Amino acid sequence: MNDAEEDLPSTPPEPGEVGLVEPHDFVHAQPFAFESGQTLPGFTLRYETYGRLNAARDNTVVICHALSGDHHCAGIHSLSDRKPGWWNNIVGPGKAVDTNRFHVLCVNVLGGCQGSTGPSTTNPATGRPFGLAFPFVTIRDMVRAQKLLCDHLGLASLHAVIGGSMGGMQVLQWGIEYPAFVRRMLPLATTARESAQAIAFNEVGRQAIMQDPEWNHGDYPKGGGPRVGLAVARMMAHITYLSDESMDKKFGRRRPQKPAMPDPDHPAAGAAPSAAYTFDVQFEVESYLRHQGESFINRFDANSYLYITRALDHFDLPAVHGSLEQAFAAVEAETLSVAFTSDWLFPADQNREIVLALLRAGQRASYAELATNLGHDSFLLESEDLYALVRSFLGAPHPS
Amino acid sequence: MNDAEEDLPSTPPEPGEVGLVEPHDFVHAQPFAFESGQTLPGFTLRYETYGRLNAARDNTVVICHALSGDHHCAGIHSLSDRKPGWWNNIVGPGKAVDTNRFHVLCVNVLGGCQGSTGPSTTNPATGRPFGLAFPFVTIRDMVRAQKLLCDHLGLASLHAVIGGSMGGMQVLQWGIEYPAFVRRMLPLATTARESAQAIAFNEVGRQAIMQDPEWNHGDYPKGGGPRVGLAVARMMAHITYLSDESMDKKFGRRRPQKPAMPDPDHPAAGAAPSAAYTFDVQFEVESYLRHQGESFINRFDANSYLYITRALDHFDLPAVHGSLEQAFAAVEAETLSVAFTSDWLFPADQNREIVLALLRAGQRASYAELATNLGHDSFLLESEDLYALVRSFLGAPHPS
Repeated sequence: MNDAEEDLPSTPPEPGEVGLVEPHDFVHAQPFAFESGQTLPGFTLRYETYGRLNAARDNTVVICHALSGDHHCAGIHSLSDRKPGWWNNIVGPGKAVDTNRFHVLCVNVLGGCQGSTGPSTTNPATGRPFGLAFPFVTIRDMVRAQKLLCDHLGLASLHAVIGGSMGGMQVLQWGIEYPAFVRRMLPLATTARESAQAIAFNEVGRQAIMQDPEWNHGDYPKGGGPRVGLAVARMMAHITYLSDESMDKKFGRRRPQKPAMPDPDHPAAGAAPSAAYTFDVQFEVESYLRHQGESFINRFDANSYLYITRALDHFDLPAVHGSLEQAFAAVEAETLSVAFTSDWLFPADQNREIVLALLRAGQRASYAELATNLGHDSFLLESEDLYALVRSFLGAPHPS
Repeated sequence: MNDAEEDLPSTPPEPGEVGLVEPHDFVHAQPFAFESGQTLPGFTLRYETYGRLNAARDNTVVICHALSGDHHCAGIHSLSDRKPGWWNNIVGPGKAVDTNRFHVLCVNVLGGCQGSTGPSTTNPATGRPFGLAFPFVTIRDMVRAQKLLCDHLGLASLHAVIGGSMGGMQVLQWGIEYPAFVRRMLPLATTARESAQAIAFNEVGRQAIMQDPEWNHGDYPKGGGPRVGLAVARMMAHITYLSDESMDKKFGRRRPQKPAMPDPDHPAAGAAPSAAYTFDVQFEVESYLRHQGESFINRFDANSYLYITRALDHFDLPAVHGSLEQAFAAVEAETLSVAFTSDWLFPADQNREIVLALLRAGQRASYAELATNLGHDSFLLESEDLYALVRSFLGAPHPS
């Protein structure tokens, strides 16, 4: 019995749900060389699996997470969990990524902060978190580390690799790096090359973090660090995951139920202003963003945010391979690329470009553009159209 | 001889240029009540004028500036000035806003920090800057204060009011507030109602400022304050003034000539990373944004940034008047609204809406959408198409 089979919950899951799951740690105790030329003596990857590995060991679907995601993409960790994994709507028995049929593997990326080795991991040489002593990580480093885990699990090949946003970058890198190992690529809402605008947003987030005095050149205790800067970075990034239209529908100019009162310690000149005037929360969208910032600082490490956004910035397949067509020359996988019309972070054009380059390289590739108004995050949200595309591409029988 | 005529430079300007100009201060020494219910015992507005006021005193074109602009929209302040005013390309003798024909007036907004009374002005009650004791200011407050200046100058009526972005909001407010006084409205790249997305960006900028410990609840000495937070706010806002396409053309993924080296005080694990890996500037777009942030903190007050972005957030003509059509019911001006296809901060739709509401209200209004790839800032940039529209709308003879 291998690790993957041990992951199956002992009690049958709820109909349609993965049910109780638990994470595992893969410890790679050999030196690992990063693209930057830096090395680590070893690393740990935290991961989860759902569904059974088949006898041929070739039914694994790898799910790659985005910037702020993790290995916990489906099921719950305890019966009191209020929220399941981040892609629970698409992964489960009978769902689009059908765990009755596929063995699903999801891994926290190298450089991350949810259990895999990253800048917040204790540096054995100092007994303190690595901080800026952690090697620079790239999308390719993330994928190469995941491949070592796949080898450890004894996987013969991957049925598919799926992911949105930074996950989609990993999908493309998987197909390029391990052509014989990857049978299907399903990148969503992604790009083959981080644009100037996307780099610019990442840079502002990094500046918010690095200019926070609590960042201290990346040297801060676990649980400490530049909470203010990280919250600002997250608030800004969150706007880029939505769309003008979705924000107007979701919040518009609505005021919260209880508007904040003016600060009594700082009365304004003359008469006090009416309650409609304050720099505290006045609009629901402000309250929402502040909540996004607050909750993020309790689950994410600021240095990981720096490292992972830098990995995004560096992602440039055309530059590395001479052209995108050349990047895809040796790919053996079949590809379905999915874009969302309202995604302005990785616009439809950038996803279409991937398929056009694959076709020029003589590969099997198709493209679907889903009309949504939910922005970049569309790939995470409920969509029967998306489910049907994924189900069909993975070759599962359609429900009749 | 009135103030405006005194503004004319004594030496003839360069052909086509306004030439040497100097700012003036209008001191309103009577109480002013803000929309918030707060009052000031008086205020100062800094302004410039170009061209001659005619005998009928009805040839003034008021130019309203955007969030970070000021009263200095054309000409130079000294012969050593390297840069003229911010809209020098459109204002001058023989230019689209022809100072041979029109008397141009441009005023730093109430709440600003370029000479007009705002949060950085010394509070006579304390001898320190007002800070948060300054009244909340609205677009309507800004316009009402400018009208007091127009009365002081003895203007009979305005030939036109022109402005982009926040300037466009002032234009609409001018036409609504003083219908008999305003003969033409020319709002560009603006909205009648700040959207949730635009409020969200403003809020992130404010959080960056207010969470900077140097902000100190708005209480900081002149020239001090939250420089880091203000720079982050500006960097982020600057992205929203450009477009994906313009950033790709202007910067792409180009590296600066001399990439920064890794910080020698913080060597990474194992071998040093190659110079391509650092959190310092790696891409030209990063260098550009950092420069934008740096130069902004030397010319702008953080509290003014808070107050003025709040004024933007509050701008909602449909809510104030019941509907946008009702807002425009009493307007007497003729309107030309100009939008730019690549503007995603105040998209074309929001500008078209203004004209549709004016037409429904029975007003004379037309709409032009210019195809540009330069984003929101398109209204500031050289465009013969824009010049032709403005020239024609103002009724000046076309050059033959």
